[in-house]
Amino acid sequence: MARYLLILEYDGAPFVGWQRQENGPSVQAAIEEAAFAFSGARPVAHAAGRTDAGVHALAMPAHIDLPRAYEAGTVRDALNHHLRPAPIAVLAAQEVDETFHARFSARARHYEYRIVNRRGPLALDAGRAWRIAAPLDADAMREAAQALTGRHDFSTFRAAQCQSVSPVKTLSALDVRRDGERVVIAASAPSFLHHQVRSIAGSLVEVGLGRWSARDLVAALEARDRARCGQVAPPEGLYFARADYDAMR
Amino acid sequence: MARYLLILEYDGAPFVGWQRQENGPSVQAAIEEAAFAFSGARPVAHAAGRTDAGVHALAMPAHIDLPRAYEAGTVRDALNHHLRPAPIAVLAAQEVDETFHARFSARARHYEYRIVNRRGPLALDAGRAWRIAAPLDADAMREAAQALTGRHDFSTFRAAQCQSVSPVKTLSALDVRRDGERVVIAASAPSFLHHQVRSIAGSLVEVGLGRWSARDLVAALEARDRARCGQVAPPEGLYFARADYDAMR
Repeated sequence: MARYLLILEYDGAPFVGWQRQENGPSVQAAIEEAAFAFSGARPVAHAAGRTDAGVHALAMPAHIDLPRAYEAGTVRDALNHHLRPAPIAVLAAQEVDETFHARFSARARHYEYRIVNRRGPLALDAGRAWRIAAPLDADAMREAAQALTGRHDFSTFRAAQCQSVSPVKTLSALDVRRDGERVVIAASAPSFLHHQVRSIAGSLVEVGLGRWSARDLVAALEARDRARCGQVAPPEGLYFARADYDAMR
Repeated sequence: MARYLLILEYDGAPFVGWQRQENGPSVQAAIEEAAFAFSGARPVAHAAGRTDAGVHALAMPAHIDLPRAYEAGTVRDALNHHLRPAPIAVLAAQEVDETFHARFSARARHYEYRIVNRRGPLALDAGRAWRIAAPLDADAMREAAQALTGRHDFSTFRAAQCQSVSPVKTLSALDVRRDGERVVIAASAPSFLHHQVRSIAGSLVEVGLGRWSARDLVAALEARDRARCGQVAPPEGLYFARADYDAMR
């Protein structure tokens, strides 16, 4: 048996999410089926993060076990061949030892939330960003965001169906940058609660629109009450950017 | 009658191109039909550039005449409403006087050609860039490109079906920039020949792959022979970026 780390880019639009589900195509099932077509084995694919329906990935680490060792470039090219025409690309493949686990070995996860702040609807970015017509104050969003970094009870920013044992998480970094009409929220943490980034993004937008003050954001956090969350940002603006691991091998 | 300048973003994938044709949906027809639904009149839409099938626009200027004056924001929002769900967005509308013509008043046109230089196929950029697997030397491309700027007979880089009176054009600027796996070719000129940017982009890629030297590119230009053109880059990497006008009004 040989274990391979895969780095995946995908467009989340046509999928029910990363995880295999009864109700539609998943990224996980697509990877597993491509691996079967290539190797004749039916591995389980494990990803660093389980993205929801419509959420994209720029460089999602995942691993699979194959019944025998192949050259890593062969694994990458063969999976890409069998994945076609699904909008999933294996950017890289690397053989790793059996102690590596894409989910459990990850030390940090990085997400990006992309907003296009303009009056006109999205043509080239349809399904790839959240369009907000009213002007956003990205500086106010960035300043307010700093209160959310560090270790907190994030119950306010957690989906009802979240399966995490504890609502206490450490948000390592939360930045907001504007580049022309684009506003990007970047969030880093060892791990996240379900809907945490979208809940935070939606609440920061309340600040950017001037409907919430920085104080209101802190009060929402401190309330530890899901009802105090701002709107939950739509999935199409969210990108799993990358995960960090200790040096491998 | 009132004339409106529109700034359009569109995804070229579902269209036969800008121009109205018998064989499928065009951006021009979509704009004209939206204008009819809104105003009851059937204006002809004129664009700064007539993009081919699959070619995109970031900020394409176009103009239409409406039977009476409306607030410019109303024109923008009404057209966007009636364009839905076509991937065309009116980013801005502005009333202009009747001497303005989106095509004939344009002083300069700017295109971008986007390449993703990596082994893995495109997932998020499928239909939005040209993926080239072998490493490109973008510095060699940029240096070689300089020989093409200025006034030349561009017969080598001109489609057989080009309707321009003369093959002599002035290429104001031709730049090649790399940002990670992305290579962007930016071209500016008062006007372009049919397929000129895609022909130049494909020939610059020959240089980037090391199959042509900078001398070979100059020889191809000087041959004034279509048969000496490199490959013609595919349409999905090409973006009409913007056009320049003298100050209006």
